[in-house]
Amino acid sequence: MIHPTAQIGQDVTIKEGVIIGDKVIIEDNVYIDYGCIIRENVHIKKGSFIGARCILGEYLMDFYKDRTNKLHPLIIGENSLIRTENIIYGDTIIGDNFQSGHKVTIRENTKIGHNVRIGTLSDIQGHCKIGDFVSIHSNVHIGQKSNINDYVWIFPYVVLTNDPTPPSGKLVGVTVDSFAIIATGSIIMPGIHINEDALIGAGAIVTKDVPKETVVVGNPSKEICSVRKIRNRITGEPVYPWRYTFKRGMPWEESDYETWFNNLSLQEGD
Amino acid sequence: MIHPTAQIGQDVTIKEGVIIGDKVIIEDNVYIDYGCIIRENVHIKKGSFIGARCILGEYLMDFYKDRTNKLHPLIIGENSLIRTENIIYGDTIIGDNFQSGHKVTIRENTKIGHNVRIGTLSDIQGHCKIGDFVSIHSNVHIGQKSNINDYVWIFPYVVLTNDPTPPSGKLVGVTVDSFAIIATGSIIMPGIHINEDALIGAGAIVTKDVPKETVVVGNPSKEICSVRKIRNRITGEPVYPWRYTFKRGMPWEESDYETWFNNLSLQEGD
Amino acid sequence: MIHPTAQIGQDVTIKEGVIIGDKVIIEDNVYIDYGCIIRENVHIKKGSFIGARCILGEYLMDFYKDRTNKLHPLIIGENSLIRTENIIYGDTIIGDNFQSGHKVTIRENTKIGHNVRIGTLSDIQGHCKIGDFVSIHSNVHIGQKSNINDYVWIFPYVVLTNDPTPPSGKLVGVTVDSFAIIATGSIIMPGIHINEDALIGAGAIVTKDVPKETVVVGNPSKEICSVRKIRNRITGEPVYPWRYTFKRGMPWEESDYETWFNNLSLQEGD
Repeated sequence: MIHPTAQIGQDVTIKEGVIIGDKVIIEDNVYIDYGCIIRENVHIKKGSFIGARCILGEYLMDFYKDRTNKLHPLIIGENSLIRTENIIYGDTIIGDNFQSGHKVTIRENTKIGHNVRIGTLSDIQGHCKIGDFVSIHSNVHIGQKSNINDYVWIFPYVVLTNDPTPPSGKLVGVTVDSFAIIATGSIIMPGIHINEDALIGAGAIVTKDVPKETVVVGNPSKEICSVRKIRNRITGEPVYPWRYTFKRGMPWEESDYETWFNNLSLQEGD
Repeated sequence: MIHPTAQIGQDVTIKEGVIIGDKVIIEDNVYIDYGCIIRENVHIKKGSFIGARCILGEYLMDFYKDRTNKLHPLIIGENSLIRTENIIYGDTIIGDNFQSGHKVTIRENTKIGHNVRIGTLSDIQGHCKIGDFVSIHSNVHIGQKSNINDYVWIFPYVVLTNDPTPPSGKLVGVTVDSFAIIATGSIIMPGIHINEDALIGAGAIVTKDVPKETVVVGNPSKEICSVRKIRNRITGEPVYPWRYTFKRGMPWEESDYETWFNNLSLQEGD
Repeated sequence: MIHPTAQIGQDVTIKEGVIIGDKVIIEDNVYIDYGCIIRENVHIKKGSFIGARCILGEYLMDFYKDRTNKLHPLIIGENSLIRTENIIYGDTIIGDNFQSGHKVTIRENTKIGHNVRIGTLSDIQGHCKIGDFVSIHSNVHIGQKSNINDYVWIFPYVVLTNDPTPPSGKLVGVTVDSFAIIATGSIIMPGIHINEDALIGAGAIVTKDVPKETVVVGNPSKEICSVRKIRNRITGEPVYPWRYTFKRGMPWEESDYETWFNNLSLQEGD
């Protein structure tokens, strides 16, 4: 069932049972698998794949008052790969080369940069900002008002909280600076600032701001050392800051971080 | 596909692909979005919204023996808002003004009061009781035999456990008294009693009963102070017991807790 | 929509909206509920039940390059009970009498033995091995390269991790030996070996190998005693090793572990 106002590009595949609403734009070479519900005002850019039974442009709260959809556009960037049964609300912008696992929820007023990955079952609660090249693993919960900068890694079952005195409704989000890593099962308390290249150990309950390049662990979390002290257990080589030792999927994949960064600076200096 | 015995009220919206089974009752002004499966003996009261692809009246274990559905009624209260892809079993009663997020699971023998909210991905394991005005956030796991009283708040990734010596099958549920708050990621051990107005800090592993108005934190949890010692970090004002400082969505929203409670007592005294 | 090459056995029930792909084999007495998507090269053995809207034979990464499915067979054993909305990838083998909850994800290169149960929302990340009679509860995350032996119990919100220096891509899985128990919310660090009959307490962050029959708790975890010291709080009787005190669903259900084991040894000696 495709609404007559929908604009469908060339070489678009639409499988059985798909519903496409009013004023939807689907660019060239998009693939929409079985049973997707694309509500009104959704724009899917070229080359993207939408997995079976995704719901895009999901209703915000104002729908339920009179059961009519209001204007809440959703934009999905080019060459995105959205796996099955994602639910993505209106009033959201997702950049190019986005990849998601299964059953991801992304609520309204979320701004996601380019080359972001979000794993199965993760729940982005909306009213938040996620930079470029951010990797969010499975079953992560990003509370409202979170601010995640570029090149951040968040591992499974991490929660970014936002209410200092629950229940209060006075939300204060977490800020995560570039290149920081939050390991599995950590809980970050409301308003906490995690600085560049910090490493939050698995299961940490983070109650204080974390300085740059600092490792914290425990419940409550304590600073234990500089990230530069951590070495690979087999090779004995230093690991962090990770941008010097890891490149898969990163813009410096073809060379290394320093070369890439220097070239970038040169170009910007032109 | 609507079974001929189903009773459908006035001003009911049923979108494409919905399946409605034997002896289903749908009252006036209900909206059932795309692809819902309403199995047998489900009763949806007036004004409720059922999100896309919900499964209501899901089969209990006895279905699988001979692949025929037994009598396990499900009742959904008035003006409920159930978002997409909830799975709610038979032998369950849900009160009025219920609200749920996406992909919630509620198993059999669950009794839920009025004005309850349950967030995305939460998993109510059945054989449990949830009072009125309870707020359960995302990805909460309520084990069997849990007993949650009125006005309780439970935040993301909390687990109420029930097996003291796993695996045993001899389940002992958690009891949470009115106005208690369980913050993100806490695990409550089997049989624990959390008393009125207690506050369980984020990430606490609660191994002992928690007295009234007491704050516990840590792994294992320790009592640290009275909830009355906690103050808003900006205003310096006391926060708890929260019913004196928070009113959104509560029955005392129009005035304050004391006025409302006094009026209530007067009425009951009539 | 059933592909003409699909082989469908006798007494098979296929409900509305099911899609069955190329070279699918469905044996006798299988039941496929509403809206399932069975992609190519899936083999469902006799007597199994596939819940509504499951996706079996889900695409691996190589699909997305040219949007054609490659040869990645999936085998589901006899008399399995797969509840609604499971997603199971190709290149996976699941044994007989498998049972799963709702919304389970099982990725590629997973080998699952017989009589395994996996609870609602659990996420098996693939490239891992799970033995016979393993019970994995709700919302468990099994990282790639995990190796879980027979008769292991894993409770809700447990995570088996695999990256010692995230992000690295050099994954080292967790090994869990037979009869071990991992209680709710524990996180097992990469490469950890949990030995036979060990008991990991709720919320433990396990950073060291756990010896046989040992109880560990805390963040970070510490050894506290032998499992033989734990007694039932009511009866005062010893509980562990649990195979002497628990039998429901186990092969020694009709007698007891010792009798069963001795008979087994006799038979093997024939």
